[in-house]
Amino acid sequence: MSDAKIRRPRAETPKGFRDYFGTEVTQRKAMLDKIAEVYHRYGFDPLETSAVETVESLGKFLPDVDRPNEGVFAWQEDEADWLALRYDLTAPLARVAAQYRNDLPSPYRRYAMGPVWRNEKPGPGRFRQFYQCDADTVGAPSVAADAEICAMLADALEAAGIERGDYVVKVNNRKVLDGVLDFIGVGSDDPNRPAIMRTIDKYDKVGEDGVLELLTTGRRDASGAFIDGVGLHLQSAQSIVQYLTQKSVIGGDELNERRLASMRQAVGDSAVGNEGIDELELMVSLLSTQGYEADRVCVDSSVVRGLGYYTGPVYEAELTFQITDEKGRPRNFGSVAGGGRYDDLVKRFTGQSVPATGVSIGVDRLLAALHAKGRISTDITGPVVVTVMDRDRMADYMGMVTDLRNARIRAEVYLGNPKNFGNQLKYADKRNSPVAIIQGGNEAEAGTVILKDLILGAKIAQNATLEEWKDRPAQVEVPRAELVAAVRRMLDQN
Amino acid sequence: MSDAKIRRPRAETPKGFRDYFGTEVTQRKAMLDKIAEVYHRYGFDPLETSAVETVESLGKFLPDVDRPNEGVFAWQEDEADWLALRYDLTAPLARVAAQYRNDLPSPYRRYAMGPVWRNEKPGPGRFRQFYQCDADTVGAPSVAADAEICAMLADALEAAGIERGDYVVKVNNRKVLDGVLDFIGVGSDDPNRPAIMRTIDKYDKVGEDGVLELLTTGRRDASGAFIDGVGLHLQSAQSIVQYLTQKSVIGGDELNERRLASMRQAVGDSAVGNEGIDELELMVSLLSTQGYEADRVCVDSSVVRGLGYYTGPVYEAELTFQITDEKGRPRNFGSVAGGGRYDDLVKRFTGQSVPATGVSIGVDRLLAALHAKGRISTDITGPVVVTVMDRDRMADYMGMVTDLRNARIRAEVYLGNPKNFGNQLKYADKRNSPVAIIQGGNEAEAGTVILKDLILGAKIAQNATLEEWKDRPAQVEVPRAELVAAVRRMLDQN
Repeated sequence: MSDAKIRRPRAETPKGFRDYFGTEVTQRKAMLDKIAEVYHRYGFDPLETSAVETVESLGKFLPDVDRPNEGVFAWQEDEADWLALRYDLTAPLARVAAQYRNDLPSPYRRYAMGPVWRNEKPGPGRFRQFYQCDADTVGAPSVAADAEICAMLADALEAAGIERGDYVVKVNNRKVLDGVLDFIGVGSDDPNRPAIMRTIDKYDKVGEDGVLELLTTGRRDASGAFIDGVGLHLQSAQSIVQYLTQKSVIGGDELNERRLASMRQAVGDSAVGNEGIDELELMVSLLSTQGYEADRVCVDSSVVRGLGYYTGPVYEAELTFQITDEKGRPRNFGSVAGGGRYDDLVKRFTGQSVPATGVSIGVDRLLAALHAKGRISTDITGPVVVTVMDRDRMADYMGMVTDLRNARIRAEVYLGNPKNFGNQLKYADKRNSPVAIIQGGNEAEAGTVILKDLILGAKIAQNATLEEWKDRPAQVEVPRAELVAAVRRMLDQN
Repeated sequence: MSDAKIRRPRAETPKGFRDYFGTEVTQRKAMLDKIAEVYHRYGFDPLETSAVETVESLGKFLPDVDRPNEGVFAWQEDEADWLALRYDLTAPLARVAAQYRNDLPSPYRRYAMGPVWRNEKPGPGRFRQFYQCDADTVGAPSVAADAEICAMLADALEAAGIERGDYVVKVNNRKVLDGVLDFIGVGSDDPNRPAIMRTIDKYDKVGEDGVLELLTTGRRDASGAFIDGVGLHLQSAQSIVQYLTQKSVIGGDELNERRLASMRQAVGDSAVGNEGIDELELMVSLLSTQGYEADRVCVDSSVVRGLGYYTGPVYEAELTFQITDEKGRPRNFGSVAGGGRYDDLVKRFTGQSVPATGVSIGVDRLLAALHAKGRISTDITGPVVVTVMDRDRMADYMGMVTDLRNARIRAEVYLGNPKNFGNQLKYADKRNSPVAIIQGGNEAEAGTVILKDLILGAKIAQNATLEEWKDRPAQVEVPRAELVAAVRRMLDQN
């Protein structure tokens, strides 16, 4: 049977998945290492759970219940158990906190970094496997734990390379929102409540008027599609908007204090609402003691967080600088991290309430932000390439590369077909090689090697005037014994 | 409805999976970082492929076809594609090499580190998710590439902490074995061939007599079970054993050369067999030029490697020291890495043969080896713990912890219920905390803090005679302003 008759498999990453190459891997690793160092200093320990969980243990806590294709990648085991890939790092933590509750220190501070999987319709920039980087404290009932997470988030962003002033950690409290809804007569078991929450979450996108429309009779969006309203009375909707617009209290001294005062009005005499504001007040005061003022951690009533399981403080890190979108328009970079207090996730397993709070950093978005701000070096120098002029002397070339590597210089010998020397230089170019080593028969006889400065060569090729480099040769011949020293000199010049 | 009526999910890691805590994560990371540094120096670039592949792209290349439950974790997409978790890092590399063949440098040197998944029956120490750490060169036809991988493997093991003398990289060549089988009349399409290969792979376990029995009429193993033989004639089986026993040529000068000479006899006039030995000879000579002699990279005819896809050189890193097994008996630690040349994996996708060679390190086994040799520090000091004597002064305690963290000292404030002070010290103990900070009302009034040296305290508790530490107090009181300096002094003493 001829080969052509066999149907070949397609060489394709599955839809919605992607591969990461070279510097994409090292840049992410460098960023996560810096963040891990901050988490470590705060006393958090790493935890790496299995990627696979039982479906029953994961539960149904996916965000974005609006979208139809949300879900997990799941399959059934031979015996009966359904298994699934984790969709976040919080559900596995809840499972671990329940499973090892007698062995773990309490409170348990842990961080986790790794991929999570979502069985969603892939879209541009929307992948079905992506990295998260979480830190959570389990077993700490006081808002001191929430304040600590917010301070640590600020430190982690700065360690990663986001400068102070380019981010703000926005904090709110679910209880405040509950208080506002209580105050306008929407009870905690009102079926409209989830829809109201999701509408409020859109404040930053659709603005004051948009939220007002969506809370009442509905709204036609930019594409012309009509989105149904929640059906609240205008007056109730206005109360909610009034609460949201305390956000318009901006700048100046004691910003957090003034925003808190404005919140008090919106919750009226609601007990839960005032409890939420008390908690926010305590967080603000603890953070202030530690030097985190409103320029870094700021009260913001529009922060809701999509997830249904939050029970108290919620927080979100927003990058405040602008970037240019695909259409060339400036827009705010937006959120790169979020979290909050979820006191009931562990209870699912044990029946006992366990207070917990934590944050998740969107790793790919934060990396994109660092790229946008030019905080990631794009000068990636490849290895020194030892070319092969005479394939019978491969041992000589490998000896050179060994000498370089032993001197801690990144180096390779060309291992493709050496017949075409041009291909070898093209290869060196593709590898971003700074220096190529050449030893033909003549040089071998003379006991020398030729070093070609590829970075200088590229500069000369770009720039017609050689004046700048007239004293610097792009190519030198040195004794073989001086190879390492000569390469190091050439590397140091660039 | 009462809570008790709701069936709670079990808090359990799925069968065959496990979680990694704290130092387990950091120790593995530290080891992989050291190995990555070696790979990088050799010019290898990182690659991180998606954990999910299409089933058709993965193909059927699982090792251990003998075992019944072998397989992958797979599920069907809505539309029709079957997806699966990768079972190794080689199959995804073959897919990437085909998919990006026009963009990648050629040869393409890449390394990859990450989890892989096997849908197998879990057993003691046998998990269904485990780490691999691979390095491969795609597009390099010459055995210089195989020699490079062997040298790099030796360097990586030493960088990880395995001392020279405690490991040997054993090399062989599939063609030599083919030659031996040719020579005794077992053709390349003989249905017995895979069974013969697997039997040879057992040489280290069952020895010369065991292999002879298994190749002929069968064998009763230690448990009393009878294992069918392959059914070769005794004379043919003896030829194979003669080839295997060239391994018995041991020690002394020119060990590799003497073993190669012994191999020549076993392949007779087989062309493919002699080609394999020529390749081995060239590898040995290239490695010798680079300083890798038989004490580090050694020809060994018993190395077969289970996988069917190898086509030329095969290699395996064995740790040569002994450990004590569960029953207290000494045994060789055994293999921690293996690989070889597989020239046909990329061809599956493109129809064009692409030469490739590479190695996979068993991360968990190598870590276990480092533990067995005491090469991993078990002295894990936890964070300084600031205790809470008065919950109304949480801001003061958080201020202390902030000062310590800003001075790069790992520290936490106790965030559990502070009522029982004994619990706080138990917590500090569980965290391996070196120092506890205490500030009650009296100290607060006096502007001081108390530092408790927990490491010294533990030593004193262990050892009845206080003589050693009589000049060193386990507890000091210092002004609050000197907190950081005093903690640093206490840490430095331990």
